[in-house]
Amino acid sequence: MVAVTVWNEYRHEREDSDAAAVYPNGIHETIAEALAADHDVRTATLDEPDHGLTADVLETTDVLLWWGHEAHDEVADGVAERVRDQVLEGMGFVPLHSAHYSKPFTRLMGTSCRLQYREDGETERLWVVDPGHPIADGLAESITLPETEMYGEPFDVPEPDRLVFVSWFAGGEVFRSGCCYRRGNGRIFYFRPGHETYPIYENEGVQRVLRNAVAWAAPTEGSPRTFGERE
Amino acid sequence: MVAVTVWNEYRHEREDSDAAAVYPNGIHETIAEALAADHDVRTATLDEPDHGLTADVLETTDVLLWWGHEAHDEVADGVAERVRDQVLEGMGFVPLHSAHYSKPFTRLMGTSCRLQYREDGETERLWVVDPGHPIADGLAESITLPETEMYGEPFDVPEPDRLVFVSWFAGGEVFRSGCCYRRGNGRIFYFRPGHETYPIYENEGVQRVLRNAVAWAAPTEGSPRTFGERE
Amino acid sequence: MVAVTVWNEYRHEREDSDAAAVYPNGIHETIAEALAADHDVRTATLDEPDHGLTADVLETTDVLLWWGHEAHDEVADGVAERVRDQVLEGMGFVPLHSAHYSKPFTRLMGTSCRLQYREDGETERLWVVDPGHPIADGLAESITLPETEMYGEPFDVPEPDRLVFVSWFAGGEVFRSGCCYRRGNGRIFYFRPGHETYPIYENEGVQRVLRNAVAWAAPTEGSPRTFGERE
Amino acid sequence: MVAVTVWNEYRHEREDSDAAAVYPNGIHETIAEALAADHDVRTATLDEPDHGLTADVLETTDVLLWWGHEAHDEVADGVAERVRDQVLEGMGFVPLHSAHYSKPFTRLMGTSCRLQYREDGETERLWVVDPGHPIADGLAESITLPETEMYGEPFDVPEPDRLVFVSWFAGGEVFRSGCCYRRGNGRIFYFRPGHETYPIYENEGVQRVLRNAVAWAAPTEGSPRTFGERE
Repeated sequence: MVAVTVWNEYRHEREDSDAAAVYPNGIHETIAEALAADHDVRTATLDEPDHGLTADVLETTDVLLWWGHEAHDEVADGVAERVRDQVLEGMGFVPLHSAHYSKPFTRLMGTSCRLQYREDGETERLWVVDPGHPIADGLAESITLPETEMYGEPFDVPEPDRLVFVSWFAGGEVFRSGCCYRRGNGRIFYFRPGHETYPIYENEGVQRVLRNAVAWAAPTEGSPRTFGERE
Repeated sequence: MVAVTVWNEYRHEREDSDAAAVYPNGIHETIAEALAADHDVRTATLDEPDHGLTADVLETTDVLLWWGHEAHDEVADGVAERVRDQVLEGMGFVPLHSAHYSKPFTRLMGTSCRLQYREDGETERLWVVDPGHPIADGLAESITLPETEMYGEPFDVPEPDRLVFVSWFAGGEVFRSGCCYRRGNGRIFYFRPGHETYPIYENEGVQRVLRNAVAWAAPTEGSPRTFGERE
Repeated sequence: MVAVTVWNEYRHEREDSDAAAVYPNGIHETIAEALAADHDVRTATLDEPDHGLTADVLETTDVLLWWGHEAHDEVADGVAERVRDQVLEGMGFVPLHSAHYSKPFTRLMGTSCRLQYREDGETERLWVVDPGHPIADGLAESITLPETEMYGEPFDVPEPDRLVFVSWFAGGEVFRSGCCYRRGNGRIFYFRPGHETYPIYENEGVQRVLRNAVAWAAPTEGSPRTFGERE
Repeated sequence: MVAVTVWNEYRHEREDSDAAAVYPNGIHETIAEALAADHDVRTATLDEPDHGLTADVLETTDVLLWWGHEAHDEVADGVAERVRDQVLEGMGFVPLHSAHYSKPFTRLMGTSCRLQYREDGETERLWVVDPGHPIADGLAESITLPETEMYGEPFDVPEPDRLVFVSWFAGGEVFRSGCCYRRGNGRIFYFRPGHETYPIYENEGVQRVLRNAVAWAAPTEGSPRTFGERE
């Protein structure tokens, strides 16, 4: 059992009726339910003290999922650094959708993480381009999402260590939708789907990806990370 | 000036009227013309002695482009090995379209290089996903090909060292269309477009990619590759 | 439990008294014992029919370890291809020491796999350069082997997907000693240590690496690898 | 001709007699001289206004070399961000030796960039592990530095896109000494040698590496990096 914390900004669902209709208890609760069968799951949100991410919570988290969008700037620098440091020590990190622009992800990547987007509810098809990757376990060759926000290339991230998904959009764009990275001892999986006004996290394929990603990103034992003066 | 050899199977254009209509002098001549302004270009074809690829030709070739489709098996193993060995010594290699299945490319990759395909003249859009790569120099954000054969994922190749293009197809598929590899001292660029019955190699964007790829794949000086017993 | 087959050329140990003194039952038996606590282990050797690697054996093998040196050429091409095909379908493959030059490994890599060597029993120190990798689980920061054959750079392999170990040799050389690759659905780990006249496979750190490598290379479920004409 | 700016902290050489003896005019001047034959070179130092790195200087710099050690913290955050942003837009960046810990490099990498070290003037041998890389052009198989500070693994950086050099140290350690990265459109080459109290930058091999690195890191034309809302 992997100790999972699902972090959510949790603003859209309280402020916007379209988002509330899709995720009445917040995106984090829907994701937490999707993971609960396999993993040990907690949630945390922006407006809790320390955004719900105290040192203690992070130290007892194996994998942190992160959903944020309109309030990236309200995340305290100190909390973002704490998340980054914990990833380097081995905590898995799964930023979702608009979290491409979150503080922890952009600091771990070192690049702008900018992209193109268009919000008009078009169809997306996520193709598995790496069928041997454990994050693709049990999937069909592609996942179809009838309505979603489009993200398009270029996506200003470092070349992924492994690229697992590439998205096709009805409007004519493509996107590298499932990107694996290692930073320090931590495993990072950026996964694109998840707009707040479409029921993306109810999709069975998407839920399977999230469960697989948590299993893949969980810390392993490793060997010593000793730094500094020697002998 | 880079010394280029454009190799073509040159069967479809002599046997099939659709191909002959598009490429009356063979695909190799169209490509050679597209490169001639920048580079020093020769051609070679399957039905010449040694397929036109004697040791002398290969040793004086900086970059070899390769188009083949229906007669991969007729390429002599010895010639395929000679090409592979020359690539390891530094010769650039640019397999095009159905050359994903050619002997030199599959031997250099080590994998099956299989893929999915559908021949129905649909629209393709090649997106630049690595705008900083020299093979993308001077391009727009994408290249549109109104009619082409579809290639779809999974594409059974090793994860590319750099992925430059991803294709979108009107029918709903995606494909990693521009893949960079280094093997030994040689640079390899697989480029997807180029079916024999569509005038793909007349496209200005495609021609720019070919010129860029030749410049990128040209050998550099390097340092010693010394192997065997030491001291 | 992972189904392991340990393949050994098994000639040195029958022909050379130095090797026989170190590995009286063959290298394969020493390795098999080291793995038996964690995994379900069989062995196979060159001089058995089909080299002990029938289609049935390979299809029921999760991870194949391979030790060969003086008789690479005696491995039948058909068996080498069968191994390669099985790796692409997902079987893990762990070539050891002089197996850098074996038929299955060179065919999977596509390069010459040449290197420099010197046989004079000098000290090697294997440094973990990727302490977060599961193959490094439970190791110290380095493994010291008091006497071994030296392998030096350049090593003509594709850039590894992940580099786990780098060796230091007392004589002044370095070597990329632990190299991870994925080819098709199969995971490959090349591991350098293992000369036939030094008791390398008795070393506790080396045995831990082998057990870790088997666990890491075991096949996962994956998603469909469907190729060919579509729709 | 590439427009180069050599940035140096320039404190040790003014404060410490050992450093002053080796680099009387500062490390930056020695490096600038080594590059001047091939490139168009300026210098900048920490104690100039804006550390000598105004927006105008950076916008007219093709490749920035960076040497810093004891005063990383005195580099203004705004200047570090300006450097990072310029790299993403295409400026080459070559951090040297203790610049592994500089603000621009750590922000571009996203990791801690920590390592092990020992200062006792031992011999280093830098091995070319990628003889086909242009940064290795014209080198011998290795470069020997008779006296230097040791840096040892683990080195907490992202897996390099290409690893060009691995160092061997007489004391028993190894280090990934020449690491290539792309971030945004910018090329980054971390190069280990260069302690302030040894005449490392007088070494002919080291000077050749610096000239090669500048040529390799220079910006290319590229294609549009367009981000934001689409259509």
